Amino acid sequence: MISVKEAVEIVINNTDVLDPQLITINEAMGFSIAEDIISDIDMPPFNRSAMDGYALIAEDIENVPCDLEVVETISAGCAPEKLIRKGLASKIMTGAIVPEGADTVIMVEDTESIDNGARVRILKQTKKGKNIALKGEDVESGQVVLKKGQEVRPQEIGVLASVGAERFKVFRSPNVGIIATGDELVEINVKPGAGQIRNSNGYSLAAQARQIVNDVEILEVAADNQEKICSIIELGLKKDVLILSGGVSMGDYDFVGKVLKEMEVEVFFEKVSLRPGKPTLFAKKGRTHIFALPGNPVATFVTFELFVYPAIRKMMRFASLTKPVITAVLETDYIAKKKRTEYRPAYIKLCDGKFRVKPVNWHGSGDLLSITNANCLLIVPEEIQKMDANQDVNVMLLSALSANENI
Amino acid sequence: MISVKEAVEIVINNTDVLDPQLITINEAMGFSIAEDIISDIDMPPFNRSAMDGYALIAEDIENVPCDLEVVETISAGCAPEKLIRKGLASKIMTGAIVPEGADTVIMVEDTESIDNGARVRILKQTKKGKNIALKGEDVESGQVVLKKGQEVRPQEIGVLASVGAERFKVFRSPNVGIIATGDELVEINVKPGAGQIRNSNGYSLAAQARQIVNDVEILEVAADNQEKICSIIELGLKKDVLILSGGVSMGDYDFVGKVLKEMEVEVFFEKVSLRPGKPTLFAKKGRTHIFALPGNPVATFVTFELFVYPAIRKMMRFASLTKPVITAVLETDYIAKKKRTEYRPAYIKLCDGKFRVKPVNWHGSGDLLSITNANCLLIVPEEIQKMDANQDVNVMLLSALSANENI
Repeated sequence: MISVKEAVEIVINNTDVLDPQLITINEAMGFSIAEDIISDIDMPPFNRSAMDGYALIAEDIENVPCDLEVVETISAGCAPEKLIRKGLASKIMTGAIVPEGADTVIMVEDTESIDNGARVRILKQTKKGKNIALKGEDVESGQVVLKKGQEVRPQEIGVLASVGAERFKVFRSPNVGIIATGDELVEINVKPGAGQIRNSNGYSLAAQARQIVNDVEILEVAADNQEKICSIIELGLKKDVLILSGGVSMGDYDFVGKVLKEMEVEVFFEKVSLRPGKPTLFAKKGRTHIFALPGNPVATFVTFELFVYPAIRKMMRFASLTKPVITAVLETDYIAKKKRTEYRPAYIKLCDGKFRVKPVNWHGSGDLLSITNANCLLIVPEEIQKMDANQDVNVMLLSALSANENI
Repeated sequence: MISVKEAVEIVINNTDVLDPQLITINEAMGFSIAEDIISDIDMPPFNRSAMDGYALIAEDIENVPCDLEVVETISAGCAPEKLIRKGLASKIMTGAIVPEGADTVIMVEDTESIDNGARVRILKQTKKGKNIALKGEDVESGQVVLKKGQEVRPQEIGVLASVGAERFKVFRSPNVGIIATGDELVEINVKPGAGQIRNSNGYSLAAQARQIVNDVEILEVAADNQEKICSIIELGLKKDVLILSGGVSMGDYDFVGKVLKEMEVEVFFEKVSLRPGKPTLFAKKGRTHIFALPGNPVATFVTFELFVYPAIRKMMRFASLTKPVITAVLETDYIAKKKRTEYRPAYIKLCDGKFRVKPVNWHGSGDLLSITNANCLLIVPEEIQKMDANQDVNVMLLSALSANENI
């Protein structure tokens, strides 16, 4: 059986990247940019006052207090009309153009307006050049401000707006189809009869996928018969990513693996040395990346994060693909099951700046409720039998930490 | 001037929580649940086989190898028809109902089918009770599975689906209006003329807000004249949250503070001992929470994260409100500016499981491009003059860490 690490590498190496598409700035969050973005302007576009105050010549205020004549008031968005010469100053607002001749802006708090604003008394010295952001000091016209491959976050949206990039290319995100299989599954609006359970995997997988892509469709639930599964998989093969859950184990009615092979998909692996999540299959047919995940809800959840998440990130051409792994202090002794690497649902919190982690209680990979107490996966390598309280362990973070994990 | 900590407390203590609204499971991600969710079923709903294998009586296989008669095959979703007595076994699929009389399931890998499936040879012993998930062991019918106030993540979506919660109450998310002020601002599709810049703050603020709420509207850009600002603010006062940027400093044309006071809003603070972001105002009028943030793009960005983010989280009744603060090792010496607490854009990465942080290069709070290199804020308390390379520092994380910060 291949290791988790090998399986992730196989997934990443065999995932196709997607083409660019044109998008508007309002739709761009969470994509990676597919072209270098070039500024059409200098930033600042002019010598810009960084403060409300007075534009003046630094030499004039070497001995304070001293008084200067105020020749005009320059507000943001307006061009200055007067030149600053020795003995003169212009009142200036934050964001306004520094007038020619001035080399310094003193902040209004260090001045006193006198003679009804006709003159200003300077109360403090200020270094030459202070409070002026020079034209082009942040960005020069023609400069690349965002590189191909950069992820669009709110900061990047600000930059895109400032250079007037209303439409630009990003790498397309995949469309995702989800099929839950199993004769025992009923829709969520049905009260399960004897032997039945509701299709929770379809919904949780869709929610996981929707955290990174928009176009996610839960296809019909596929009963455990070969013909039905075939026809639904045919539909799923129109997607960039097809995720199945269930039907990949060793049962007589686990048709998914069989059906996929008959459809001549290329199977890269169908078992991983992983707990929970051993019967995980990765295959491809044409442009469709197929993940057949185990049907136990915790295993479905974990294998999405380990294998499907990095594949989608690669398709969208992000630089970072997998979820981050950090070191934390284990809070309790832990007896491992060995043989396979465990990715054990756990809860991580911050105590005095240090991360502490504890496995959540669970009854095994069918225990969906247990993972509502989890925010990470404790990684237990397959050769490890026991881990001790207070030792350092590796933890894969699943979502952004929130501040109540900060106590 | 009040401290950042005091200001955040004032914001949180004066933020009104919002009422519940009914929502469907497909819309629920990112909300907090407004009612206890109760299971209408046991989980598992029956004694459930956790493996593909044979259901049998443990006593029968104390001496292996031994052969048992196979009385039926039970697939998932079907009710067993035969009782298991001494010497008998039923072939059983993962997720199927364990037949009466059986107390154990042995996995198929530890057996050999003989006599054309009429009998099975058991090759290994198995502990009594093994591979059976007992009815109700995870959840009992009538049990609360999700508590009021819990955040909906993919795990919770799975639980909601499994108990048939198609529609349920969550705490409403606020609608947010954004107004950028300044005579120098032009729309992003316009090439700025002399003294002008594009309205990037409106876009970056909207992107920040859209990370946590859906209903975000960029209202018109408000020129720096009192009447115009007044009429646009009137529009903004129909929102739960109104965010203004610019116009709150000490300039003659900084009308925002003046206008708000004339409108008889209740102002809680209008300056915070913070760099960047001193001229930050928090006020309320009726149900509208008003944040007038400074106009410098980096200051706008930082003050949203520090003050607006926790207010929105409180309105939505999340348990955790602020962004998490962790300890990291500083990579370089850092000379602080003192007087005000700095929240300095910085880049955090993981080296051998330890977090290391470095301030990003910047030219001050107008340098929008600098924060595209940042993923966190380095916190420099106001009494600190200098921090040394390799010392521990506090860092506020801004977004989920990604794996390339893991090198």
